[in-house]
Amino acid sequence: MPLKEQQLIAQIRRQAPRLRGGLGIGDDCAVLRLPPGEEALLTTDFTLEDRHFRRDWHPPDAVGHRCLARGLSDIAAMGGTPRAVFLSMAVPAELPQAWVDRFVAGLLKLARRYSVPLAGGDTAESPAGILADIVVLGSVPKGKAILRSGARPGDLIYVTGNLGAATADLERLRLGETLHARSDRKHFYPEPRVAIGQFLRERRLASAMIDISDGLSTDLSHLCEESRVGAAIQADAIPAALPGEDGLQLALHGGDEYELLFTAPADRPIPKQVAKVAITRIGEITRGRKMKLTLSDGKTEPLAARGWEHFSQ
Amino acid sequence: MPLKEQQLIAQIRRQAPRLRGGLGIGDDCAVLRLPPGEEALLTTDFTLEDRHFRRDWHPPDAVGHRCLARGLSDIAAMGGTPRAVFLSMAVPAELPQAWVDRFVAGLLKLARRYSVPLAGGDTAESPAGILADIVVLGSVPKGKAILRSGARPGDLIYVTGNLGAATADLERLRLGETLHARSDRKHFYPEPRVAIGQFLRERRLASAMIDISDGLSTDLSHLCEESRVGAAIQADAIPAALPGEDGLQLALHGGDEYELLFTAPADRPIPKQVAKVAITRIGEITRGRKMKLTLSDGKTEPLAARGWEHFSQ
Repeated sequence: MPLKEQQLIAQIRRQAPRLRGGLGIGDDCAVLRLPPGEEALLTTDFTLEDRHFRRDWHPPDAVGHRCLARGLSDIAAMGGTPRAVFLSMAVPAELPQAWVDRFVAGLLKLARRYSVPLAGGDTAESPAGILADIVVLGSVPKGKAILRSGARPGDLIYVTGNLGAATADLERLRLGETLHARSDRKHFYPEPRVAIGQFLRERRLASAMIDISDGLSTDLSHLCEESRVGAAIQADAIPAALPGEDGLQLALHGGDEYELLFTAPADRPIPKQVAKVAITRIGEITRGRKMKLTLSDGKTEPLAARGWEHFSQ
Repeated sequence: MPLKEQQLIAQIRRQAPRLRGGLGIGDDCAVLRLPPGEEALLTTDFTLEDRHFRRDWHPPDAVGHRCLARGLSDIAAMGGTPRAVFLSMAVPAELPQAWVDRFVAGLLKLARRYSVPLAGGDTAESPAGILADIVVLGSVPKGKAILRSGARPGDLIYVTGNLGAATADLERLRLGETLHARSDRKHFYPEPRVAIGQFLRERRLASAMIDISDGLSTDLSHLCEESRVGAAIQADAIPAALPGEDGLQLALHGGDEYELLFTAPADRPIPKQVAKVAITRIGEITRGRKMKLTLSDGKTEPLAARGWEHFSQ
């Protein structure tokens, strides 16, 4: 086994807290006990160098944070509770150990905040570029997961937080600007909305939910497709982080936002704020399978799913 | 999203059976219901081109088979039952779609044999080489997983099947020989010992267990380390697939065998065969932390962990 792999495994072992009611790294599998009456949620997400991050743009701890945030956000979108994280990582031989240390530190800092142990994983030498596959195991009371398929015509559509700032920062990086990776900067340190997902599930408020990882327009289209419905969105209602037409476009199509998009029957009381994050009503689920956008001048146009796919556009 | 990714996701969706009591692909997470009273087992394993396989040596369906066999073997080593598989895969843009199709077909053929649905995953374009990360979720009755840490001095040591043939085939490939990837050829189509692991767990026969993925000597050292014990092995007793000193060395240190190595108290009745696979006693757990090998001439020498790490030696 190459030295770097041994170091990475030793480091994960050292840093990973032992699982409560289960076992940590050291066996062929991790053993995890879910709370009685709960079922398992499982999500996997790749993080690839030059696709999801660039070494010259993103500090290693922000890459680790973003890597885990993607998985936690998927758990949040089901109304679940994250229970354990597994990190598989392939790194080139020339990568400094300090980069890996800071990556793992960023990932574990976020994991600790959500009380999720790093319970295992795999490591390898990569022929080109850094590649991480994050697996998050979560749980949710049986039959209570909030699916994409539960939206019905007449349900109202909501989003958490505001949209577009993460993609605006990515655009600035693309244009050659150097950005300070401040901890409150969503592009570098997005916050998965776990508490909001749980709140909506516990109170049975949401009929369908998805996280905004590919962009509002694309993730709304996924929700509509799974629910076999359409949607009518009010442009003015969208909580865009930036002003003007550019701000609207970023909010509609920008990816990596990690806000929640959900629907609820019109008679359910949705708070204006949950866990200090604003919740905004942006439209309504319709019959038919089309998505429409009503602009501030009252005109309505078709809304196409053209979310930005990370760096690949 | 690049076209190849869309195709792969569509293909996985089409081929993946829906989960019983749960959901398939289409939500942010897969939702999986474990049998009542069982806890979750989770394992992740990388399969990397030119490290775990070579496109000119291994047919794509054998790569898919081997990829999943690694994960199923980890579940077997805990005495567990596999419940769902997740495949994350990064492929270069130039890779023919037919290669991916045959890879997925090989993986799914093995999955069907063990009644394990492909429940999700992720896809990406790789900058260099094919990379697959396989995640297998399994389950085992609470507290009954067979760990590496349960071996006690005086326990007897057993292995399933025979050892060395897989590595011998790899050596022949390395020397430039062309091998026919016959279905009974362990190097191409290793069989995870799931039924044997379950048999040993149900009858409470094994005190500790591990699968032989890195080589008998290395995996025995892992088991000894976790159990804080030593081991005395009889060279003559090892079920080597090939004769002579070379056969012994291959059996002692060859990797990718996917047989089970386990220990059991001396008074437990271990059958000579389970699920039509031979079970052979090869030695005994000792006090202290050393591994020793007794040769046919009666001489005893230290046994070093020098299992072959795939292609990296």
